[in-house]
Amino acid sequence: MTKAPGFDEAATRAVYRVIRERRDVRRGFLPDPMPDELLYRLLEAAHNAPSVGLMQPWRFIVVRSLAVRQAVHKIFLDANQESLAGYEKDRKQIYAAMKLEGILEAPQNLCVVCDSESPQGHRLGRQTMPETPVYSAVCAVQNLWLAARAEGIGVGWVSILEPERLRSVLSIPRHITPVAYLCLGYVDKFASEPDLERTGWERRTPLKSVLSYDSYDSQWDKEKLKQGVHDRGVGAQD
Amino acid sequence: MTKAPGFDEAATRAVYRVIRERRDVRRGFLPDPMPDELLYRLLEAAHNAPSVGLMQPWRFIVVRSLAVRQAVHKIFLDANQESLAGYEKDRKQIYAAMKLEGILEAPQNLCVVCDSESPQGHRLGRQTMPETPVYSAVCAVQNLWLAARAEGIGVGWVSILEPERLRSVLSIPRHITPVAYLCLGYVDKFASEPDLERTGWERRTPLKSVLSYDSYDSQWDKEKLKQGVHDRGVGAQD
Repeated sequence: MTKAPGFDEAATRAVYRVIRERRDVRRGFLPDPMPDELLYRLLEAAHNAPSVGLMQPWRFIVVRSLAVRQAVHKIFLDANQESLAGYEKDRKQIYAAMKLEGILEAPQNLCVVCDSESPQGHRLGRQTMPETPVYSAVCAVQNLWLAARAEGIGVGWVSILEPERLRSVLSIPRHITPVAYLCLGYVDKFASEPDLERTGWERRTPLKSVLSYDSYDSQWDKEKLKQGVHDRGVGAQD
Repeated sequence: MTKAPGFDEAATRAVYRVIRERRDVRRGFLPDPMPDELLYRLLEAAHNAPSVGLMQPWRFIVVRSLAVRQAVHKIFLDANQESLAGYEKDRKQIYAAMKLEGILEAPQNLCVVCDSESPQGHRLGRQTMPETPVYSAVCAVQNLWLAARAEGIGVGWVSILEPERLRSVLSIPRHITPVAYLCLGYVDKFASEPDLERTGWERRTPLKSVLSYDSYDSQWDKEKLKQGVHDRGVGAQD
């Protein structure tokens, strides 16, 4: 049987390039708003994500209102203050110096929420793993993130937010899960490495350290213990 | 301030194309195994995913052993039997006729698991939203899925599996979350539309039905109720 073809070399290279050059962007957002057509292209990319049972459980709340963004920013500030209080010494200094969101600078924010009870998809594939609708919504985020990089749009995912307060600001009902809060916009540059690496917060590990065959590798947990010891040395909590 | 450039037109088109042409593949896997170099390229794409605090919490278990795949396939058969029993009439017939996994046909399977307690990343970003490590692992799955499509490799996500039994077969410890079980391999073709649409299980909705501005749209829940009524008409359970 003949193998179905992949993309040609240039197109395949573009796919790997966007995966490699995607960055979590928190700084350098420009005030120019995105045209609607561009925003829709990115949302269509998200909407093309895989979903369990074809249920498409994601819902997109585009936040342009400055008042709403200010309310979300206040939620960030409070959660960030609390996080900072949990670190000590060197690590507290690094944390305090980092810029972790662009809620007010990015003219567009996007909250991706998930309706895990939607009848669409007729429950297919979510009976043994009820968390799969939320996973589908995360796939939508990643699609948007990659398309945005190709379009020259920076995206930053802000998770330092109390979900209950976010729910209240955006009128998200109880049965809906807030999955991701994103800042989107034109940027002055895309960094060549992750911000968290540049600031000395963390280093990327090689692939081989997370790869095993036919069974979970119990060595992974031993290495974690070693790293835990190292962490205490620089003042972190775990 | 100058805007950082995106990709050129051809590369941007390739990114949107891979997002649009990615499919959940369950049929037509070919017996030829993937070369190691190709498998590593796909895993590197996964490993380049965004992760909360740069914690890279994913762990990749490549399953090539036929005995292990047979054990996982048995878990699928049992869960699938149970799912089938929950449908009635027309919908039961459609369900029974669908091919939902390629565990034995695809020479490579991949289980992506998540260590949500890893000290890597020093807890950054996961204090208010402790589910974010799992979300990072899902982003890794989506990266791999897209790279695979460009390389001509079909990927199918199997969630009709009892996680506790999967844990037992792959020796996954209690503190580790099994996130995704994937079937990977060369295929005879990539379908132009989702299998679930072709079989009449579900239809894709337009973007505008899931898009709102500055606030959750309560209309979404009213439309869900309408769809629920429609569902009962064709024999589904909710």
